[in-house]
Amino acid sequence: MHRFISRYSEVSKTLIKIKDPIVSAKNRTLQLLKAFSTMPPIAKSNHYDYLVIGGGSGGLASARRASSYGAKVGIIEWSGRLGGTCVNVGCVPKKVMFNTASIAEALHDAQQYGFDLPSIPKFNWGFLKQKRDAYIKRLNNIYLNNLVKDDVEYIEGKASFVSKNKLKVERDGQVEEIEAKKILIATGGRPRLPREIPGFELGITSDEFFDLEEQPKKVLVVGTGYIGVELAGIFNTLGTNTYLLTRSDEILRTFDPIIKDTLLEQSKKEGLRVLSHAKVKSLSRDSPTGPIKVDFTSKETNDTVEEFDVVLWAIGRDPNVEELNLENIGVKLNDKGYIISDEYQNSNVEEIYALGDVCGVAQLTPVAIAAGRRLSDRLFGPPKFKSSKLDYDNIPTVVFHGTCGTVGLTEPEARKKFGDENVKTYTSKFVNLYNAMTEQSIFFLIKAIFFL
Amino acid sequence: MHRFISRYSEVSKTLIKIKDPIVSAKNRTLQLLKAFSTMPPIAKSNHYDYLVIGGGSGGLASARRASSYGAKVGIIEWSGRLGGTCVNVGCVPKKVMFNTASIAEALHDAQQYGFDLPSIPKFNWGFLKQKRDAYIKRLNNIYLNNLVKDDVEYIEGKASFVSKNKLKVERDGQVEEIEAKKILIATGGRPRLPREIPGFELGITSDEFFDLEEQPKKVLVVGTGYIGVELAGIFNTLGTNTYLLTRSDEILRTFDPIIKDTLLEQSKKEGLRVLSHAKVKSLSRDSPTGPIKVDFTSKETNDTVEEFDVVLWAIGRDPNVEELNLENIGVKLNDKGYIISDEYQNSNVEEIYALGDVCGVAQLTPVAIAAGRRLSDRLFGPPKFKSSKLDYDNIPTVVFHGTCGTVGLTEPEARKKFGDENVKTYTSKFVNLYNAMTEQSIFFLIKAIFFL
Repeated sequence: MHRFISRYSEVSKTLIKIKDPIVSAKNRTLQLLKAFSTMPPIAKSNHYDYLVIGGGSGGLASARRASSYGAKVGIIEWSGRLGGTCVNVGCVPKKVMFNTASIAEALHDAQQYGFDLPSIPKFNWGFLKQKRDAYIKRLNNIYLNNLVKDDVEYIEGKASFVSKNKLKVERDGQVEEIEAKKILIATGGRPRLPREIPGFELGITSDEFFDLEEQPKKVLVVGTGYIGVELAGIFNTLGTNTYLLTRSDEILRTFDPIIKDTLLEQSKKEGLRVLSHAKVKSLSRDSPTGPIKVDFTSKETNDTVEEFDVVLWAIGRDPNVEELNLENIGVKLNDKGYIISDEYQNSNVEEIYALGDVCGVAQLTPVAIAAGRRLSDRLFGPPKFKSSKLDYDNIPTVVFHGTCGTVGLTEPEARKKFGDENVKTYTSKFVNLYNAMTEQSIFFLIKAIFFL
Repeated sequence: MHRFISRYSEVSKTLIKIKDPIVSAKNRTLQLLKAFSTMPPIAKSNHYDYLVIGGGSGGLASARRASSYGAKVGIIEWSGRLGGTCVNVGCVPKKVMFNTASIAEALHDAQQYGFDLPSIPKFNWGFLKQKRDAYIKRLNNIYLNNLVKDDVEYIEGKASFVSKNKLKVERDGQVEEIEAKKILIATGGRPRLPREIPGFELGITSDEFFDLEEQPKKVLVVGTGYIGVELAGIFNTLGTNTYLLTRSDEILRTFDPIIKDTLLEQSKKEGLRVLSHAKVKSLSRDSPTGPIKVDFTSKETNDTVEEFDVVLWAIGRDPNVEELNLENIGVKLNDKGYIISDEYQNSNVEEIYALGDVCGVAQLTPVAIAAGRRLSDRLFGPPKFKSSKLDYDNIPTVVFHGTCGTVGLTEPEARKKFGDENVKTYTSKFVNLYNAMTEQSIFFLIKAIFFL
């Protein structure tokens, strides 16, 4: 019965899309019956060698690699968009915005390079957003085509565990159960919301940053991990009056001092308003389209109320585990709620694996891709790959603000690990040749940390 | 007597600079005598541990490193400008022009990124040239200060060999002889001129590219090594009607096919007029400031005469050896005129060393710097450096047009060396994320060549 209702609900939805007022009641019934009789099941099969939950970078890579070894593979994604955080609300659209900001910087420097451009031309945020969205859609389709090409079944729906080898998949109320010998959890993460702050729901996260149809005039970015710093940098460079709020007096807290100190100093020079030792007390709004009033304290302002067009929470990310019913099979989470997986991506439950952002370690697309491929090499590949795994040491990463990159231990980490007497650092600081023609004194720094 | 004449000549020159019409004949004589009596010698000493001929990248690096070990070091440079080709007429000003072209590209793309800029603003070549010249002058001074700081004597003059350990140094006719235990030849190279072509002197080389006060409207670049390709690319991107002439149907002949083929195709797309299987027969000009008439043949044009504002020879470079009187000490040259030095930078004559462009191998600034430092480590450093030398294998290089970089063997070189059956290549081709927002179909390619 549940199955019928769910199918009926799906069919109704299909018909609603027709939106034809002159369809008679009789025709409507006939159409309903016809649609029901042809409605496809969620999954083509009841049993798979390998089911992957989550169509993001890691899941896609692992599914395709497994299929290349002849395994019968399905990948389950509920959002209707393949590519996960990276493609839809992360690296890819972020880099488009970063490139846009880079163009703005070139426009800013053009006069000093001899071009007759006294001011930066007006920027049309909505125009770029449309192009960016169209590009992302193209990528979604490319990812879908790659699955077809690699003979991986794309299963649209929301998965949860019934038992160790059995998943329940739901789509628009329709429900099916499918089984797999091995299951990978690659459901990723999502932005954290500060639910304890009154009015928090008036703020957006990085997800909704990409929904903004117009450039806000004044923005408060709360949080100074790389996501907050990058988005604040993009806003600021494109001409938005941008405030960046940090609990401490630092940004990019986990990075080496050479990165966080230099970028903080440089950001201030570029006009970013940094509020330090700061805390948001509440958000409120007088009218649904009015500005957001933020009550906050900071070293620079004491207790104050200020209005912003957009408040963006960039206070961290949480793993997508709640709706998986992991308790049904006993998959263990760590104290922060991430799935615990070993160096081979094994969870504590046999034949259940996990990788990518849902594990909370090195949350980077290429890491998830590499871990996913190594895992499938090991599970489905030839014997030479029987110990295949990703080496999580020395993973390089970049912050798209500045720009800076880093690999290996930070100096404080190195000193703690090896002792002050065994660590030697070399630093070089210079003005880049590019900036020799501009008026800004932007420095380039390099730091090498050696362990003796 | 010769010495007196030369000093007098120098003093005259000093006085000419005064340019005071009311200086009486008597005053003039008094000033002459005074200047003569205080005129400094060319070099402060008659004997050095280490004399370096040539104040370019390699010579400076070697001199400073030698001095750091306590050696008494002098560096002899005739041009009055430290830094050599790289700083004055090479990498540095070239990169400024490349950065300018990059700004022009950003301006070109701005509209497609949502900025209201329907056309590229007017470019003021002369304005940029002044800034660029001022920057180079600052660098010249920084290099000079570095010598002072590192206790290396800067000897301004033209050096040639009298005997194995003795140099003659001339400046404005003034001549001195100085001796050194060890002598390094790091005199670099200069652009080649096609002296066999009638009217060749109407063309300029990369040296004079940096003297251009105005942007030429129409340019012919002859030669498709990296210098020709880079300068043609800069002209073209900045809006000059640019022709690039190649003897074959290739550009960047010594580079891997993936680089030369892609850049040729891309250059044509960007509007560069490539003349293939071409040959310049003569240059002529009707008036001293008129356009240059070029009589040339090419596959595209047959035999034709066309007018250009500038003709730039980029047909190769020659070593600066002619005025060193190397025949006095028997230093051997190879069949192309370059000094033969072994892996330790030893020439065939004991205590005479050579490195950098004058040796014709891997003519790149960082190579000369590294070779210079290794050499001084070996000659003047502690025993642990007694076998110090530069490894010339796998030197990376970049072409500032495109942009592309490469390291190691090209595919044809690898196939020749290891045999077809032992070489495996991997190629990836994609549209860069930056170009996803622009209308140009610019491809990025990566090629990895493995030897089994």
